[in-house]
Amino acid sequence: MRIKIINPNTTKTMTDSIYMAAISCARSDTEIVAVSSNNGPESIENFYDQHVSVIGLMEEIHNGIDENIDAYIIAAACDPGLYVAREMVDAPVIGIGEAAMHMASLVSAKFSIVTVLPRIVPLIEKAVEQSGLSSKCASIRSINVCVLDTENNPLLTETELYKSCQQALEYDGAEAICLGCSGMTKFAEELENKLGVPVFDGVIAAVKLAESLVEMKKHNSKLLTFKNPTKKEYAGYVKGLEPKS
Amino acid sequence: MRIKIINPNTTKTMTDSIYMAAISCARSDTEIVAVSSNNGPESIENFYDQHVSVIGLMEEIHNGIDENIDAYIIAAACDPGLYVAREMVDAPVIGIGEAAMHMASLVSAKFSIVTVLPRIVPLIEKAVEQSGLSSKCASIRSINVCVLDTENNPLLTETELYKSCQQALEYDGAEAICLGCSGMTKFAEELENKLGVPVFDGVIAAVKLAESLVEMKKHNSKLLTFKNPTKKEYAGYVKGLEPKS
Amino acid sequence: MRIKIINPNTTKTMTDSIYMAAISCARSDTEIVAVSSNNGPESIENFYDQHVSVIGLMEEIHNGIDENIDAYIIAAACDPGLYVAREMVDAPVIGIGEAAMHMASLVSAKFSIVTVLPRIVPLIEKAVEQSGLSSKCASIRSINVCVLDTENNPLLTETELYKSCQQALEYDGAEAICLGCSGMTKFAEELENKLGVPVFDGVIAAVKLAESLVEMKKHNSKLLTFKNPTKKEYAGYVKGLEPKS
Amino acid sequence: MRIKIINPNTTKTMTDSIYMAAISCARSDTEIVAVSSNNGPESIENFYDQHVSVIGLMEEIHNGIDENIDAYIIAAACDPGLYVAREMVDAPVIGIGEAAMHMASLVSAKFSIVTVLPRIVPLIEKAVEQSGLSSKCASIRSINVCVLDTENNPLLTETELYKSCQQALEYDGAEAICLGCSGMTKFAEELENKLGVPVFDGVIAAVKLAESLVEMKKHNSKLLTFKNPTKKEYAGYVKGLEPKS
Amino acid sequence: MRIKIINPNTTKTMTDSIYMAAISCARSDTEIVAVSSNNGPESIENFYDQHVSVIGLMEEIHNGIDENIDAYIIAAACDPGLYVAREMVDAPVIGIGEAAMHMASLVSAKFSIVTVLPRIVPLIEKAVEQSGLSSKCASIRSINVCVLDTENNPLLTETELYKSCQQALEYDGAEAICLGCSGMTKFAEELENKLGVPVFDGVIAAVKLAESLVEMKKHNSKLLTFKNPTKKEYAGYVKGLEPKS
Amino acid sequence: MRIKIINPNTTKTMTDSIYMAAISCARSDTEIVAVSSNNGPESIENFYDQHVSVIGLMEEIHNGIDENIDAYIIAAACDPGLYVAREMVDAPVIGIGEAAMHMASLVSAKFSIVTVLPRIVPLIEKAVEQSGLSSKCASIRSINVCVLDTENNPLLTETELYKSCQQALEYDGAEAICLGCSGMTKFAEELENKLGVPVFDGVIAAVKLAESLVEMKKHNSKLLTFKNPTKKEYAGYVKGLEPKS
Repeated sequence: MRIKIINPNTTKTMTDSIYMAAISCARSDTEIVAVSSNNGPESIENFYDQHVSVIGLMEEIHNGIDENIDAYIIAAACDPGLYVAREMVDAPVIGIGEAAMHMASLVSAKFSIVTVLPRIVPLIEKAVEQSGLSSKCASIRSINVCVLDTENNPLLTETELYKSCQQALEYDGAEAICLGCSGMTKFAEELENKLGVPVFDGVIAAVKLAESLVEMKKHNSKLLTFKNPTKKEYAGYVKGLEPKS
Repeated sequence: MRIKIINPNTTKTMTDSIYMAAISCARSDTEIVAVSSNNGPESIENFYDQHVSVIGLMEEIHNGIDENIDAYIIAAACDPGLYVAREMVDAPVIGIGEAAMHMASLVSAKFSIVTVLPRIVPLIEKAVEQSGLSSKCASIRSINVCVLDTENNPLLTETELYKSCQQALEYDGAEAICLGCSGMTKFAEELENKLGVPVFDGVIAAVKLAESLVEMKKHNSKLLTFKNPTKKEYAGYVKGLEPKS
Repeated sequence: MRIKIINPNTTKTMTDSIYMAAISCARSDTEIVAVSSNNGPESIENFYDQHVSVIGLMEEIHNGIDENIDAYIIAAACDPGLYVAREMVDAPVIGIGEAAMHMASLVSAKFSIVTVLPRIVPLIEKAVEQSGLSSKCASIRSINVCVLDTENNPLLTETELYKSCQQALEYDGAEAICLGCSGMTKFAEELENKLGVPVFDGVIAAVKLAESLVEMKKHNSKLLTFKNPTKKEYAGYVKGLEPKS
Repeated sequence: MRIKIINPNTTKTMTDSIYMAAISCARSDTEIVAVSSNNGPESIENFYDQHVSVIGLMEEIHNGIDENIDAYIIAAACDPGLYVAREMVDAPVIGIGEAAMHMASLVSAKFSIVTVLPRIVPLIEKAVEQSGLSSKCASIRSINVCVLDTENNPLLTETELYKSCQQALEYDGAEAICLGCSGMTKFAEELENKLGVPVFDGVIAAVKLAESLVEMKKHNSKLLTFKNPTKKEYAGYVKGLEPKS
Repeated sequence: MRIKIINPNTTKTMTDSIYMAAISCARSDTEIVAVSSNNGPESIENFYDQHVSVIGLMEEIHNGIDENIDAYIIAAACDPGLYVAREMVDAPVIGIGEAAMHMASLVSAKFSIVTVLPRIVPLIEKAVEQSGLSSKCASIRSINVCVLDTENNPLLTETELYKSCQQALEYDGAEAICLGCSGMTKFAEELENKLGVPVFDGVIAAVKLAESLVEMKKHNSKLLTFKNPTKKEYAGYVKGLEPKS
Repeated sequence: MRIKIINPNTTKTMTDSIYMAAISCARSDTEIVAVSSNNGPESIENFYDQHVSVIGLMEEIHNGIDENIDAYIIAAACDPGLYVAREMVDAPVIGIGEAAMHMASLVSAKFSIVTVLPRIVPLIEKAVEQSGLSSKCASIRSINVCVLDTENNPLLTETELYKSCQQALEYDGAEAICLGCSGMTKFAEELENKLGVPVFDGVIAAVKLAESLVEMKKHNSKLLTFKNPTKKEYAGYVKGLEPKS
């Protein structure tokens, strides 16, 4: 099967890390296609970036129809454009934010999410609510490191991340950790060893869930919420973005 | 004061109705500027349309900075791009969806929202949740009429709207009605007379709330959730959309 | 239009401050009538005071019918007798507690309420629940100052208030402040300047909402919860208080 | 022990029925004192009646201090003045609304409350919320009979009550019934026989809970919410009602 | 009447303390039968122990049918097997966990539960949820003492318990305490004196509630959730445990 | 990898169907071991059956430790003994109830669960709550068919199941279906074709999630809730069941 992972930001080094994480856990018969958005912000750190990123994401989802894609993964922890993407295609679309949370719910009573900047916390809050798993989420914590510094300053990131995870386990009632930024993937294994509780990277979790849904031959329900958008006129700058089906 | 109302769809007849509703209730010293989005769908009827419409909306919010705008109104009942817009500017930004709900909460114990197509219900659900007023919302009902038919087929719309409102009052526990589409503005007064309960048009409610916040000299809190986006690189199609401040 | 503000306690210096706040923001064509209750406690600091204060409040609401009142404001942060008053009249009735919360919800993701004595917190909790805005309320904090000391000891009040607000912003996730006592009105502006986030005085918020509802020609829904009480016999001490309509 | 049951309305025939129900289940060493309020409405059917009734209730609670009362029962299903009364005295104060709900929660997974007039439903809703047992309450239903007609028209009441209970069991998921009006006491036993599920009369439930708390030597927590009101000046009509302690 | 208290663990010294607590508050015409489970763990400290303990509990419930038992009490704070037992018999079955919570809700606005080991907290959480009283529960705290050490090391237990209760009152908003282990019964009175707020031992609370339900002639609702299990084949080790009715 | 599926009832034909479903979707390198409980009820239809079934389940979980099991599946829709099993082993333990719900949440906005007997609904309700996915669950419906009749009377089952699913989609807001009984596995595919929305069989969902967790090398968090039970004495009938580690 072919799974397309869309990094909705344009930072290719992050896409590379995401790809490496994905193939590290994918089945041998799974082909991973990982793309950076061609149209979007270099990182997603607020609602503004998040909304703009969905434009580039839409294009990559749309392209997937001709690329024989069996499932899509949106590789940003705030799950941008998840419902939009599900409207566009039949194939399952998994957000890495929700993927980590669903998996964590299977091996722990409560999890915490640790993300990068404090101002990303409100974006993650909406993703938690959308996933339906609010009652399993002990807390959302942040370290004071911006998205790109997870690449540029890995040592600082690792130190701060560990500290924040420990606080979640000690004070918030968390018993597992979900990483709240796709740039944190590379710290997952080491972190799990040091903390002694399951640590979930959303990319890996999403790959496994996507493979599973494909093997189960499941598609997005088209009854109401994820019905395909009907054709209509779009004007100006966004002309050309109108639903293709 | 100057209030800019942005119709995030490109249908100018709807913008005209919105403008008429707005000036019908605005204070004499309030200047209403009503614009259609230049870049967007002709109507918002699903998550896809909604996300694309935010692109055009952003542009109009951004332009407002040089137009001496004191407050903004987003004139679609699903409150598209509300948090994005609040990040962009200091001036208050009111969604017509939330405006109707806040006002209805002041004169009724519970309200229902009646919108157009069934598939818009999930969009409205998210707006209700975002407003914080879920416990005041008795139900969200829909009539089977698309957005543009509120203009093209007003008789049908009026009949179906009345029927749906009556059901909300009789079966759902609603004691007031919020209109769930900016194309329903013109039916509000007649509907209120026939139903005998308060009927809230979001455009009018938003104008009054915007005037109020301006008179109170209030701005968006810039502490965390609505902090201005920081400058960063945007690539491809969306280059030029990056935060200007 | 005529808006009647009822201070449900009998302390006239507080009524004077309330009046000053109200006219500072009222439209030029709005006439503000501010009255102290003739029958009630000198301050409201527990459920007992609160219930007794409703008796005097009822009288002032009733008198308003012959005074051509267009809207009423109940000027105590715990919104005493709000549902009672709405049953009595068609004209909108706004509580200053709910008014601050609704307004704060429009410019911040979460607000905290800071009130005077710890024991008033449970009264405010019920007002938050009644408003429907629990999910927007980050916390309710108190300073250790009684209601009348907001008049008698303004320096202490100001210092403690500032400290408590800062804690709400730093520890509770608040991004705006609602003042939880009508005696705090005079500190609002200075506090907003020092904290750098919107600070809402309920009196001012209520005046703007009352003006708005009157301009929108809205009345209390009389379908069920706020139906006028039917005539019946009242005996003893409360004879004479029976519903007049 | 002495338990004082206060009927907060002035209808003595209802007080008599309440008394008969109470002594039918009280322990032999329990002395029941049942009083009608001297100051209040003949029945409680809206928020207005409810608030006025608290004035007469306060007097009876206050008098109880010199009457060696060990526990108080407020005999109206909407639990008027419950928190006020708990502030006034150390002795336990039980509302018949909450009493029925707590007892029903011990022998059923969910209960429904059936009250008299539709407009009393919002009063009961607040009592359910205050009790903390919302998640156990399947529904609140009403029959179209006013409070006094439970006395004047028992046949109609019985028929309608039975019908409404059956609907709660069949459609709402209830597995037990709480009677939502002190005038329904006399129908409880017959109703239970016919429905085949536990039917709770609040008066009887409250007597048993009051006896229990007295035997356990429990008093109202005076830490915060139920602290005694402090002395202060009350003016006008309510002068003389100020807290006595 | 005869009330059977079943200690679902096999530690007879605990059963003795439970019996002493029960007779200290039972009515003179109440006969208390207290038994240790013959089949079960020596203490319940995790979900595993809890599930196993239900086997022995079932046997004692079943035996009760021939013992003319009027009501049952399950004497472990996590209310093991409560719904199972209610299915088995008509007579009321009260858990000591829920009993303390219901009683505490009648004299305080919020309570905290203090239990023994941290790992029992998740068991208590489920009992709180099952009781329906989550909104009244300020917190669940634990001391670091295992169940049997409440017998073997009473001094340590008493000290730690007091400290934990004080923290609940000071930081969590609790205004009453529920003891979260049947081994804590003996500390209740002293603790209440020192803390100055009501402290509820579940055994005593359950005895009073059981007596009350028997006097009210109430049985478990057999409509759905607590219907008697139908006869069916059980195999292997549990053959002989199949429902007897 | 080896996945052990435990049918907690003793009906071997059901275990056979479960096994067939499991191997139909398992990866080629996954070895499925499906066992019936040796000790338990022939079907689980109430809380009593459910609790007894956990005894046999525990044995099979325990045996798994020496069988090199990589993950366990509990094949009853009410997820009996899930937390117990997770305490016992490091390897992931998935309930088929939760598995279907997590998967359904990834391709639909809301799902309904359709189970067999009405009296199983309360068991499923607890499983939904435990999964954390209450806000995604539109309804739980039942057909009037007992567990064993899904084997003995497949035609009736299929007809009733289809009817009930349609009602969930039409009236409850469901957009996907979770099958609420392991005996329904065989109807899943046909049902999905006829309904046109995703239909989730829990066995298949659980196999995919179990495979995923094993490939991700995840174990149960042993921090608090799922810590291994400590050794202690068990007496009587259950002697021998004490935790082995």
